[in-house]
Order: sequence, then C-alpha cells, then structure tokens
Amino acid sequence: MSKRLIQFSRTPWLPALPPRGAGEPLQRWIHRALRGAIVGGRLGPGAAVPSSRALAASLGVARGTVVLAFEQLVAEGYLEARPGAGMRVSAQVPDTLLSPGRPRRAGGAAAPSAPRPVFSPFSGSLPAVAFAPHRCETRVLPVDVLRRLHGRLLRGHNRWLFEDGPAAGLPALRQAIAAHLGEARGLAVDREQVLVVSSMQQALDVCLRVLGAPGDPVWLEDPGYPGARHLVRLAGRVPVFVPVDAEGLQVDAGIARAPQAGLACVTPSRQAPLGVAMSPARRAQLLAWARRASALVFEDDYDSEYRFRSRPVPPLAAEDPARVLLAGSFGKLLYPGLRLSYLVCPPGWTDAFAAALSLTARHPNLLTQAVLAAFIAEGHFARHVRRMRRVYVERAAAFEDRARRLWAGLLELPAMQAGLDVTGRLAFACADRDAARALRDQGVESLPLSGYCAAARLPPGLVLGFGAVDEDELDRAAPRVARVLEAMRTASATRAPA
Amino acid sequence: MSKRLIQFSRTPWLPALPPRGAGEPLQRWIHRALRGAIVGGRLGPGAAVPSSRALAASLGVARGTVVLAFEQLVAEGYLEARPGAGMRVSAQVPDTLLSPGRPRRAGGAAAPSAPRPVFSPFSGSLPAVAFAPHRCETRVLPVDVLRRLHGRLLRGHNRWLFEDGPAAGLPALRQAIAAHLGEARGLAVDREQVLVVSSMQQALDVCLRVLGAPGDPVWLEDPGYPGARHLVRLAGRVPVFVPVDAEGLQVDAGIARAPQAGLACVTPSRQAPLGVAMSPARRAQLLAWARRASALVFEDDYDSEYRFRSRPVPPLAAEDPARVLLAGSFGKLLYPGLRLSYLVCPPGWTDAFAAALSLTARHPNLLTQAVLAAFIAEGHFARHVRRMRRVYVERAAAFEDRARRLWAGLLELPAMQAGLDVTGRLAFACADRDAARALRDQGVESLPLSGYCAAARLPPGLVLGFGAVDEDELDRAAPRVARVLEAMRTASATRAPA
Repeated sequence: MSKRLIQFSRTPWLPALPPRGAGEPLQRWIHRALRGAIVGGRLGPGAAVPSSRALAASLGVARGTVVLAFEQLVAEGYLEARPGAGMRVSAQVPDTLLSPGRPRRAGGAAAPSAPRPVFSPFSGSLPAVAFAPHRCETRVLPVDVLRRLHGRLLRGHNRWLFEDGPAAGLPALRQAIAAHLGEARGLAVDREQVLVVSSMQQALDVCLRVLGAPGDPVWLEDPGYPGARHLVRLAGRVPVFVPVDAEGLQVDAGIARAPQAGLACVTPSRQAPLGVAMSPARRAQLLAWARRASALVFEDDYDSEYRFRSRPVPPLAAEDPARVLLAGSFGKLLYPGLRLSYLVCPPGWTDAFAAALSLTARHPNLLTQAVLAAFIAEGHFARHVRRMRRVYVERAAAFEDRARRLWAGLLELPAMQAGLDVTGRLAFACADRDAARALRDQGVESLPLSGYCAAARLPPGLVLGFGAVDEDELDRAAPRVARVLEAMRTASATRAPA
Repeated sequence: MSKRLIQFSRTPWLPALPPRGAGEPLQRWIHRALRGAIVGGRLGPGAAVPSSRALAASLGVARGTVVLAFEQLVAEGYLEARPGAGMRVSAQVPDTLLSPGRPRRAGGAAAPSAPRPVFSPFSGSLPAVAFAPHRCETRVLPVDVLRRLHGRLLRGHNRWLFEDGPAAGLPALRQAIAAHLGEARGLAVDREQVLVVSSMQQALDVCLRVLGAPGDPVWLEDPGYPGARHLVRLAGRVPVFVPVDAEGLQVDAGIARAPQAGLACVTPSRQAPLGVAMSPARRAQLLAWARRASALVFEDDYDSEYRFRSRPVPPLAAEDPARVLLAGSFGKLLYPGLRLSYLVCPPGWTDAFAAALSLTARHPNLLTQAVLAAFIAEGHFARHVRRMRRVYVERAAAFEDRARRLWAGLLELPAMQAGLDVTGRLAFACADRDAARALRDQGVESLPLSGYCAAARLPPGLVLGFGAVDEDELDRAAPRVARVLEAMRTASATRAPA
C-alpha cells in the first residue's frame, strides 16, 4: 500500500502517500499523510480534499477511519469543513502559526482580526504527561464551535452576561444539565435540583459546609481520590476510611466504624482508582444505612459516560434521589480548563446549597456558563461525548494491546471496561512510589496506588491514564515503561533471590 | 437650540435634532437625538455620522461631551467605529434584535455567523434596580474588545486553555494584576504574591481556611459588609464586631475585645458602608497591633480606583506588605458577571493559599483569565477605568444635585468623594428597613443601613448606589424616593407630634 499515488477522477487529488509504518494504525497513517502534505505545502491553503467516502474507497479502508482522521485534522486546524463545499485545507494552517521563526502571513501587515498568539502561560509546550491519570484528550475539541458560541453571545447584546447571576447557576445551564442527565444517565432530575459549581472539589466542599459540623465523621473510600481526603480534613471533618473490595465500598465496615456519620463519599459507577462497579447488594445496603442514619451519600460520578463494552451503570441517585447528592464534571467530558461541574441535590435542598455558594464563591463566569448551556442544548456536547467514546474505545484497545505485548510479567492490568485510566498491579516486589519515581525520571507520568490509600495496605500498583495518549505517544512511552520496570524487577530479584 | 437642522458641508448629515428637555444634560440630549434617528430609521445601517469635532463645533458644545455620547452609543451597539472611516451606524442595531415581535433580518435565512439571541436566563428584562448599591454600569463595556479577545485566543491553537491550570491563577493574569496595582494603587507587588480567585468572598474564604482554626476570633467592622459576617460564621469562626467612627475602625475597641485575634477584616480606603477613609493614626495603630499579635489584616480594597476629587488613598498593604492581605475585584471595575478577583499575599504565603485553593475550587476558567490578562496588558482595562471614572464623576454630581433639590429634609448625604454608592441618613424618625421596604414597593432598590450593623446601633440610613443609574433613570427614580420618604415623614410626625 506504500507509495501509492492516488489520483481521483474528480477535482481533488492527493499527492503520494508516505509509506505506512509497520503496525501503524490506518487512522494515524492517513492523518500523518494529510498533515504532511499540508505542512509541506503540497496541499495549499484552501485546497479541496477528497471526500471521506472517495478516499476510503480508494484506500480500501472503512470510511469511519478516514472520518476520524479528518476530524482530528479539523480539530487541529489543518482542515475546515465548509457547508456544501466539502473539506478544504484551512486558510491558515497551525504549524505556520506555531513556528515563531516563520512569517505569519506572506507580506503585508496582519489584519486586525488575524489570529495571533496572545501569550502562553507556560514555557511554550505542555509538560510530558504520557500516562498521567485523570486526564482527557483536549486536542480534538470542537474549538470552532466554542469560538462561534462565544462570538454569538457577545454579539447578542446579552446584558445579563455582565451582571450578577444566580448563585445556583444559569437557569439555561441547569436545564441543559438536567436534560443531559436524563439522556446519558437515565436520571429524572428537575432543573431546580441542579447547582452549577466550578469543580468536583467545590461540589464536595459545599456539601461539607452545608451538612454537619467540624468534628463530624465522613465516610471515604480507601483507596480513594486523595483530593477528597484532603478537603474533608481542611473542612475540619474526621475522615472515616472504609475499605473497598471487588464489590465496592464495604458498607459493613463503614457502619462498624462510624454508624452515625452524616455523609458518605463514594464512586459507585467505577471506583476510583480500582475501577470496580459497586454491586447491587452493596448499593442497597448503603442506601438503607443512609435512610436509617439520616445521612446523605455524595456520589462522585466522574467519568461514567465513558463505558466501552456495556451500558453505563445507573447512578445511585436514580435509586434514592432523596438520599444522594450526585456530582459530575465537564472537566473530563469536555476539558479541564473549563472549570464547570454540577451537583444534583435531593429535592428541597437547593436553597441551602445555593445560599452557601452565594457566600463562598457566588457563581462561575456567566459567559462560560452560557456557552456551555448552548453547547449542550444545540447537541454539540452529546456529539462530542459520542465521538470521544469512539476515540477512547480505540485507545483503551491499543493500550491493552501494548500492555499485553510489552508489560507481561511486569504490570498486570484488569480488563478495561470504562473510563480514562486503569490501575495495574506491579508483578514483582517493589514500592510503587519508587516505580512511579523511576518512570517520571524517564519522562513517563503515573501515580502510585499507595498514594490513594489512607489506612489500606494494597499490593503495589500504578494508576495509568490512557485517554489523553494517542498511538504515537503510546508507542513512544510503552517500551520505556517496560525498560524501567524490567530494570526494577531485575534489581529486586538480585536483592532477594528466590 | 431646539429643532435646529444641522447640515454639514461634507458627507454626513444629521436630521433635525429633537428639542432639548429642560435641564437635560447635553450629553444625554445628543445621545437621545442620535439614538432616535437610528431607531427611527432616519440614519440607516452603515450610514456615516459626523465627526465628534464637527458635531461639537456645530452645536457649540465641548467635544468631550459628544465623545461620551458617541462612546455610549458604541457600547450600546448603535454605532461602530471603523478605523480610518470614522463613526458609522451599526449594520445591525440593537433595538431590532431586542424586540422579539419584529423580524430580525428582512428576508432570507440567517447567516451562520449572524448574531442571534441564544437564550435569556431571566424573563427578558433585568430587575428594576435604581439605587441598588454595590453595582457598576455594565452598559458601556467595550464588548467588541472582549469579543475580539475571545476570538483571538480561541483561534490561536492555545491548547493550554483547555488543560488544567495552576491553582494560583494564570501567570499572565497574575503579572497583569501586579502591574495594575503598581500603576493604580502605587503598590510594588511581585507577581508571585498575586492569586487569582473568583470573588472577594472566595478571597476571604481562602484566608479563613489557611489562617487559624474554628473558634478563633476574627475582627469585623461594624457596620460592615454582611457577606463577610456570614462567611466568617460559616467558616466556624467567631466574629468580633469592632465599631467604626469618622476615622474608621476603632482599633482600641478591637484590642479590648479580642487582642489575640489572628485576622482583622477592614475597608480602609473607603469604609463600607460609611464611606470614611481610615485615618493615618488608626492605620498605624492597626498595623502595630497586627505585628504584636502576629495577626494578618484582610484589606478589602473594593472600589478605590474610583475616587473623584483626589488621588486614591494608598492601600494599607503599601505600609506593611508582610501583615496585609490585599483583595480586590474586577466585578466593580469591569462587570460582576466576570467573577474574577485577586488576593495579594505577603511574600512567602502564596504556596499555602494556592494549596488551599487547589483543594477547594482549583482555579477559574482559563479562557476567562486569559482574556482578562490580555485586556489589561493591552491597555483596555486602564482605558475603561479612566472612562468610567468620568462617567461616575458625572453621575455622582447628578445624584448629589437631585438629592439636594428633591430630598432635602428627608435624606441627608455626606459629600460624595469616591465609589459607586453612598450612605444617607434619614432625617426623620423611622426604621430604615421600613423605608427600604416602602421604596422597594415603589420599584426603587436600596439597602437599609441597619442591615450592615451587627451590634452597632446607628441612626436610620439608606445605602444607595448611583454608579449604575444614568440620568434618565435618576430622574425617574429620585422624585419617587422623595414622595415615599415624604409620606413616611408625614406619617411619623402624625404618630409622634412634637
């Protein structure tokens, strides 16, 4: 298939494609070929690109593969979809903008509306991340749509954007979130129950402020997300660490340790970081305890929209809306820099939470809220999540494939069914903090499982994110992980001969 | 001057101006005339408007008066300034957009980039506000500039906008705030001392979390901003109410009540709500106490950029940077819906505050931060504040004028020297809550002085904002205030005959 010259009978044509690398996925090859042709100048600004149908037929690949390559090129700014006119090379291609050495426009002063870099807050490039967990892919965002929505709102003489807004959030966004939860999570939620907050941490923070008092115990999963632990301590509450097994939170242990707790924080859909779903028996047991103890359950529903091989697990909140506070974030579904999350309160609780928010942080920026509301209401959000689910399914498969081929005997992974990260068990004796440190020294991020543990003592493991890692990056990082862990295993065998 | 037909020798001409109302300010008359001509269709979309110089000469008024009228029309969307082409009527005028009954565009489908209302979160119009305090004018914002900056950043392949950002805030924004404080407040601040937060309440909240523990006393001004009082209680701290006199906080009283407090919250530049500036002796006394007690002073510097008759009072933070936390908000300087404020910590304290923020709220939306950073760095912010100072000087004068003419013997105002609101004393016996309620029943907002008091017992007063009230609104509301208060005075005299 390499060096094939593609010539279409109709207008657009593509120069010779570069050779496909050994094992290179088709989508990446097509992406690389088109990008190379654009950056190299063989496809000039404004040039027409063959339709995905024609290109797929010509290459003998599935049309979806070509569409995904096109979508990535659009997201990266290389291609533009023009209604009715098909796909074309962008008038200004990003690599030109990104290389400061080259002139931005050939001749002439920049027009006032020409894109130019304002500044970069970092030193020009993002830090090496590879398998840093809790990250989503931000390179395939529909930035054009976001830009259009910002422009439309700011052109529309929407004076309310500039005034104070309601502490519970913009009604339109609360409505859009309620509708999303109905569709994506099967949850019947009234808009009045939804509060807009800036982050999951803020959602938990406002719960800690409204419910209970300093000194009161709060159940936390162990292992569990360290941010919750630190926040509970900052709020002057006493964390009660409840162990987790293959069925999720061990409710019995929680009841034995602190039956009178007023709040329990859980990740029932996909336990963070172990990945297990809470069993129906445990869910029923937890809710029964909450009803008896007049407690509330804080349900951290952080990434359950991304489930690969089955329908998402329904939220606890669907089983007993009066006992559950459901929190979710757009940081993983859309992008972290957005800083918008939501908290669904039991009916009748909204005013208390809104009052606390009005004292602590008021509300997030109104334009940001309005853009997200329109983004959801006009279907862009559902489309993006559908598309990212496809991307993550592919990435999870690639990640599993490399793990099987390269990490056997070093790091054992469970079957990957959902989410953007996975916890692997180290298959030899070592401290997982040492492994994470050794990997970081080689430019590969990960988190040690022990960092998620408070009282729990678990076998050593690494929490690895794969959602933000494309196949190029995976293929650069996976062998490095193997080398580092192989060296550690050898050293450990030398220290303690069998 | 009425009914004069203005015809310029060069291209643009203006139809007959409407008669100038008795006592109508020139600026408002010019604004009304041009707006009427545009809305009435006598000046069509795209039509050229005479230069401010020509129009001023023709009317025999100062050019600045015409410029202010033009600026308001630009801000309202009626006029557009085209570089090199002078001022023109906008292609789409806002009244067309705002009336839902009329078709938005004559014939044809809307272009994809055409402005169209997305939704309104409120019921179509903002609530009646008149003299609601703590509000700034949002109708003369440079919305075009904001739109351009959003577009530029979203066009620029700035991937970092979508990633997680630093908890202390965007470095570029911290830098811009430090530079602003140097220029506007004469404060030498290192960027590293500046934290970006979403609101003044969040600034105080993070201080309460980092400094001290539940049960610790916190000094609060009495009268003072009620939000601080509620937040201190929410954080489990014990508010210590320290009286205020003509020199500001009575430091002696604070020392007598709680010498060991770790934090004192003050508004030294312009006491909220009494408006007095803290005397140099009291400032020195407060800082001496803070040094002795190892306490910190939270300086709420909420609107000191707006001082009308003199240079702003320098911040306390300039006198002892190691003892003062300076907080300021862009909500009053730019617009409340922005939700961005800052906290300047003493050198060496930033990490502790950033760590607390990273646990509670992380950071505000990155695009919002980046737009504000560019807005400041490119000079738009300083320009806007200069311009608004002129607007507020004019509004304060008009407000004082109406108060003198209409409210004499009812409500006595101090000399207005700064800020966007003022506290007037009711000149007859009544409960100020009753007066505020009676005014609200007539559609006029205000806050009773007693609402700012915790232990303090002050003569009845009303806190009135004038910053968001243009002269039309002032002239509608001021006589209504007089009627309501007059009726209350009569009733009070009948109840208690002298």
